[in-house]
Amino acid sequence: MGRWSTEPAVVALGGGHGLAASLTALRQLTTDLTAVVTVADNGGSSGRLREEFGVLPPGDLRMALAALCGDDRWGQTWARVLQHRFDSAGELSGHSLGNLLILTLWQQLDDHVDGLDWVAGLLGARGRVLPMALTPLDITAEVRDPDGSVSTVRGQVEVATAPGEVLGVSLDPADAAACPEALSAIADADVVVLGPGSWYSSVIPHLLVPELREALCRTSAQVVVATNLEPHADETRGYDLADHLEVLRRHAPQLRVHTVLVDPSAVTDADRLGAAAGALGARLEVADVAADHAGVHDPHKLASAYARVMGAN
Amino acid sequence: MGRWSTEPAVVALGGGHGLAASLTALRQLTTDLTAVVTVADNGGSSGRLREEFGVLPPGDLRMALAALCGDDRWGQTWARVLQHRFDSAGELSGHSLGNLLILTLWQQLDDHVDGLDWVAGLLGARGRVLPMALTPLDITAEVRDPDGSVSTVRGQVEVATAPGEVLGVSLDPADAAACPEALSAIADADVVVLGPGSWYSSVIPHLLVPELREALCRTSAQVVVATNLEPHADETRGYDLADHLEVLRRHAPQLRVHTVLVDPSAVTDADRLGAAAGALGARLEVADVAADHAGVHDPHKLASAYARVMGAN
Repeated sequence: MGRWSTEPAVVALGGGHGLAASLTALRQLTTDLTAVVTVADNGGSSGRLREEFGVLPPGDLRMALAALCGDDRWGQTWARVLQHRFDSAGELSGHSLGNLLILTLWQQLDDHVDGLDWVAGLLGARGRVLPMALTPLDITAEVRDPDGSVSTVRGQVEVATAPGEVLGVSLDPADAAACPEALSAIADADVVVLGPGSWYSSVIPHLLVPELREALCRTSAQVVVATNLEPHADETRGYDLADHLEVLRRHAPQLRVHTVLVDPSAVTDADRLGAAAGALGARLEVADVAADHAGVHDPHKLASAYARVMGAN
Repeated sequence: MGRWSTEPAVVALGGGHGLAASLTALRQLTTDLTAVVTVADNGGSSGRLREEFGVLPPGDLRMALAALCGDDRWGQTWARVLQHRFDSAGELSGHSLGNLLILTLWQQLDDHVDGLDWVAGLLGARGRVLPMALTPLDITAEVRDPDGSVSTVRGQVEVATAPGEVLGVSLDPADAAACPEALSAIADADVVVLGPGSWYSSVIPHLLVPELREALCRTSAQVVVATNLEPHADETRGYDLADHLEVLRRHAPQLRVHTVLVDPSAVTDADRLGAAAGALGARLEVADVAADHAGVHDPHKLASAYARVMGAN
């Protein structure tokens, strides 16, 4: 790792498949790895568990844990078990075993972080997974509808599939406390990686938790923004990379970014992109990180790109 | 262990809380311990999973696994997780996490025994847990109703709560294949323990699987029948210990029993009991095995009694 005398302390923030891709890459570079995961999901199995038990949505946490599972048969098998989804005509259909396991540990141990650490222990995980906050949150968005009127849309699923243009998002409650262990990890990090992932659903929410935004603005870590390969089919329809960065800047004007990592295939207007990165204080790192099938990062290419970015400072 | 040069190979057959009590005692005496568990339950979480997925009822298997969990904090915590039951006003209420975990492993690994071995591995279990058969079974009973007429009742829950007198039980299908690993364990055992537990629901079913009954009649192991402290509130209402042994003999006339273990508090008619034991070829071992609260075995007292029975041949 070049400039690091020991392994770098890396914190990855996000949710869903984007964060899982990032973790799959980063685990190749360090074992001092912490995922900080959004807890604003309200769809699918997670949404049903929020509704039935009033708990944090476990789905994105589960996916991050599975991405960090040990390399051996033990870790791989328990990761498959964690990711297993029931399929039937009955009441369990659509639920993921890992979500139910995390819920059980929360109820048994009465501590979110402790419960997630036990799942990490089961998997022999290479790193730690934390929620960004300790209360379930809801995303609300100002959306400009096709007829030009502006309305408020509530809920991650509803925002992600709103037919209009998302003008900005906020969280409800707006003042949720961050997970203290996540704040410490960011303060102590050498590198913080934000994204890739659904921009309004998985990336921006971290900047809307006040303590987390302040920690990200204050950390001495190198801040890397990993961008998407293509815009989200709904929530960022029509956005180019510069638009994504501009959304980031609008939601956290004080945040200083060191590097914006982009795949060349996603660059449509290099000048606009360069200007948007510059407005964040960032330099661009253009690197081939795309897998063969569209829209998906290749973990090995992404690991190489992260290694270069981290080594170069 | 006196007569054993190495640890004795012990097989315990049963289901529910009775088997769990037996395993909690036996694990103090040997690590070469195999539980063979009934798969005819149709109630509660197990019944719902049978209905929704057509699988073996996992509940009694889960309880046996939890009873064998490792002594350390790891084993104890995962046993609590396994035994955790959801409580809500929603669709998951009443389900046990362990049942869902076992179901997941069966679906992921497509092998009943392999799946149970993985749960045992998770728990650091002292022993192995096997189903008595590899297809879900139903208990049917001939019941003499209060008005004197005889009818057939189907389903473990229905049999256990039938208002009349159970005259005899059978399994549907009647010719289910036994779990091959259970047959091997019985053939290789030094000691086989049957009971305690709900007689018609948890103990007798093993004798109704033809291959299992034959294996029990053929084994050179010492066969111990551990009796209940009090009759079941419904299915063996009014039975004394002699009646329990007579039911056993009627359902497996060829079975030779070496020892019938009874608590002195449960003996009502010593002559009838002695005769019923004699009809099985067994001697009586009378030992205080009751816990302070009614109807429950004390694991330490039960372990001492088993040790004496096993050492004495």
